[in-house]
Amino acid sequence: MDLNSDLGESYGAWRMGDDAAMLAVVTSANVACGFHAGDPAGILKTLRDAAKLGVSVGAHVGYPDMVGFGRRNMDPSSAELVADVIYQIGALQGLAAAAGTTVRYVKPHGALYNTIAHDRRQADDVITAILAVDPSLVLMGLAGTPILQWAQERGLATAAEAFADRAYHADGTLVSRREKGAVLHDPEAVAQRMLRLVETGTLESIDGKTVRLQADSICVHGDSPGAVAMAQRVRQRLVEAGVPLAAFALARSH
Amino acid sequence: MDLNSDLGESYGAWRMGDDAAMLAVVTSANVACGFHAGDPAGILKTLRDAAKLGVSVGAHVGYPDMVGFGRRNMDPSSAELVADVIYQIGALQGLAAAAGTTVRYVKPHGALYNTIAHDRRQADDVITAILAVDPSLVLMGLAGTPILQWAQERGLATAAEAFADRAYHADGTLVSRREKGAVLHDPEAVAQRMLRLVETGTLESIDGKTVRLQADSICVHGDSPGAVAMAQRVRQRLVEAGVPLAAFALARSH
Amino acid sequence: MDLNSDLGESYGAWRMGDDAAMLAVVTSANVACGFHAGDPAGILKTLRDAAKLGVSVGAHVGYPDMVGFGRRNMDPSSAELVADVIYQIGALQGLAAAAGTTVRYVKPHGALYNTIAHDRRQADDVITAILAVDPSLVLMGLAGTPILQWAQERGLATAAEAFADRAYHADGTLVSRREKGAVLHDPEAVAQRMLRLVETGTLESIDGKTVRLQADSICVHGDSPGAVAMAQRVRQRLVEAGVPLAAFALARSH
Amino acid sequence: MDLNSDLGESYGAWRMGDDAAMLAVVTSANVACGFHAGDPAGILKTLRDAAKLGVSVGAHVGYPDMVGFGRRNMDPSSAELVADVIYQIGALQGLAAAAGTTVRYVKPHGALYNTIAHDRRQADDVITAILAVDPSLVLMGLAGTPILQWAQERGLATAAEAFADRAYHADGTLVSRREKGAVLHDPEAVAQRMLRLVETGTLESIDGKTVRLQADSICVHGDSPGAVAMAQRVRQRLVEAGVPLAAFALARSH
Repeated sequence: MDLNSDLGESYGAWRMGDDAAMLAVVTSANVACGFHAGDPAGILKTLRDAAKLGVSVGAHVGYPDMVGFGRRNMDPSSAELVADVIYQIGALQGLAAAAGTTVRYVKPHGALYNTIAHDRRQADDVITAILAVDPSLVLMGLAGTPILQWAQERGLATAAEAFADRAYHADGTLVSRREKGAVLHDPEAVAQRMLRLVETGTLESIDGKTVRLQADSICVHGDSPGAVAMAQRVRQRLVEAGVPLAAFALARSH
Repeated sequence: MDLNSDLGESYGAWRMGDDAAMLAVVTSANVACGFHAGDPAGILKTLRDAAKLGVSVGAHVGYPDMVGFGRRNMDPSSAELVADVIYQIGALQGLAAAAGTTVRYVKPHGALYNTIAHDRRQADDVITAILAVDPSLVLMGLAGTPILQWAQERGLATAAEAFADRAYHADGTLVSRREKGAVLHDPEAVAQRMLRLVETGTLESIDGKTVRLQADSICVHGDSPGAVAMAQRVRQRLVEAGVPLAAFALARSH
Repeated sequence: MDLNSDLGESYGAWRMGDDAAMLAVVTSANVACGFHAGDPAGILKTLRDAAKLGVSVGAHVGYPDMVGFGRRNMDPSSAELVADVIYQIGALQGLAAAAGTTVRYVKPHGALYNTIAHDRRQADDVITAILAVDPSLVLMGLAGTPILQWAQERGLATAAEAFADRAYHADGTLVSRREKGAVLHDPEAVAQRMLRLVETGTLESIDGKTVRLQADSICVHGDSPGAVAMAQRVRQRLVEAGVPLAAFALARSH
Repeated sequence: MDLNSDLGESYGAWRMGDDAAMLAVVTSANVACGFHAGDPAGILKTLRDAAKLGVSVGAHVGYPDMVGFGRRNMDPSSAELVADVIYQIGALQGLAAAAGTTVRYVKPHGALYNTIAHDRRQADDVITAILAVDPSLVLMGLAGTPILQWAQERGLATAAEAFADRAYHADGTLVSRREKGAVLHDPEAVAQRMLRLVETGTLESIDGKTVRLQADSICVHGDSPGAVAMAQRVRQRLVEAGVPLAAFALARSH
């Protein structure tokens, strides 16, 4: 199983997250590319640390909205979105080369991530961009959403992710953050939940049903001390249970 | 001989220059990378047009100062400058791959170009960045300035450029734009001047002396109708005189 | 009658429109505030020229999207949108004070303009912002849209504008730019159309019906030589017909 | 005596400093204006909190360099710098009006602060900007630097500030951060030092001499838990000693 997290999200004088701590937890790092977060010098530092630790690197591409952290919906034209995604991947590839590593996959961020889970046009633009810059890149998306199939139909490899700290409906969709109980806070419960997911391919839904979920990677967060501790617990439980942890994208290249 | 020009400098809804016209004149295109000018969609379009016409592509890297067009001095730290240059080269490489072409060289822009002609620290940062991302890239700099030697000493190939429309002092340095006569306006005189440069390796200085100048490329401008006409005249005179025009960076790969 | 146009839209080294020519045509200038267009130095110059010519000044506020020219839909939170609009109005008020003039009204730009014509939440945010910074400011909006009534209900004065070069449906709504015939190109026909609007309060719709339209201002464009010529023709026809031209917002203060 | 601190420096999703804690300590808040730090919604929140607590508000204006936090030298033209400063003051005035308070003074930030302490041209540009937008604004600068006299000569009121946590040379200049001992870390020693400054107008220099310093305000920092604690200690010692704490700029209006 792969563990992924959003990293490289500091910006200039502003810190966000504890990249050093999270790089010791995850096997895949979704690294910001300078559009919704990240500045080149900070990104390069995170990439160097990821390279040292053998953590696989993905391009965490977003809308061009630094002040909104890429969390606000936008409707770029296809020409804009395709080029914006290529630009971000290329910039990260350049920094990754300088850091002695390689970009293996692409994970859209924030509002772009949510939009392409259902919006065919923007989804196609992202797929077009990845194919244009490097068709060997893997697209990471939310387990159970059509974007994964759309990408596969156009020849892209994909990775499906589950969120460690999020509640799911019985149909496998995420409970909206606006609803009560959407975010899970107990590190031990979350760790056990992820162990069950890995071992049985199932989760318990918010209303007590069994949800079957095909996940190639588990997303953990590192943007607060509590989040880091939860991520560490998830890793610890999986390791103790003998689950091999490895980056999906590196594994794919063997 | 190579003819180069700054292209891809439009930004969003704002146009700058006539890229289509200039791509028919030059053999090398210094393409903006989104820090001092250029947005991804516009850059991609320029790269596609350059690819169609077989024009060689260079990364026109600059300070992160869109509103100042990269023309204002800044003093980034080495960590910042190195990463900013890598980021821009990588972004352009990504867009170039999507356009079916390749970035062959790097030409710093504006205040960064002027600064590294004499500032050893920032020059070294730019050289470090190029070496880190792709040591086969050629650094283009002003003929006669030490940056070219500094780059060669660290293993980078270089290309020296002369400015078609600028007056030179007898010692081979440019006459400052603040001085009278610094910029030449007569297309025919400029074309003849460049033909002499190519054939004899010499120019006439602003005070009538003979200047010896070793140039691998001639820089022409395209930011006004008059500038485009002058560039076309320079090309026409060289072609009529039987001077072979070819991108320095493409030639190098044969 | 008032004639308004979008001005101050240059950005750094990039020019847009011919502000000098348009300031001789209009009685109200919608001046960009630095979020979708305009940089402080360029805005200040336009304000000084407007002050010299006695042209009334409005704040042309937009989404924070320079590269998209404020034309892309965004969904800022209310806290963000309210503060963004206040910030832009305040910035323009500061520059206007320095230029010896005063901001009289607010006209949202681009995607924000279109959104608040129907989206009650974002409309209320804009109204809240204007009331918070200066309740004597007038809100300019599209004639016939509910935003004008929503603003009046909360105590704001409003001005309704008609577009000189746009076709209208029989119900008084604009024909979408995506439809054929949406934009009118014949300067003389447009000028006569606006004279009829001023004299009778009616226009001919795209399908030949009579449309009644209550307009306090006519919007003309200046972003191309042809647009400037059309604007000049509209002004000339109104002046020849004896229509008094005056800024709605200045008139209001008497 | 007045206590001032830099506030409103968060940006979008990124937090910086503990504004709530510092607003309980200081009498004057230097509020970021969106060029080197601060976004409109965050600035507005800080201004509302300052208004509630009766803390005086100053415009903390900086170079347009968000990623560099305004700490990198730039050489804007006078037209650019004047307009940039007016724009920022105006924007803050607008937000302050919405928050029920008023901008009383201007304190340049970072590289701009350091530059105008000695660079007459940029200093004059800042003074010109303040005079243009509101000549009743007070300019805050470093005690002992010529900018204060330059401003007075042109009719601006000024406030001189001392830094609580910085060492001084015997001639009253700050010890550079690059030198050992430049920054003081012991809260109690700093508090006693500031009490002595208030009571006697003197400090002990880094080499044990007595420095006479005329200060209208003391600058304290809030960008770390330790910094907040130090600021609280300074305030506590002054209050215990019976030193009246009041904003210099509010006092001026009585």
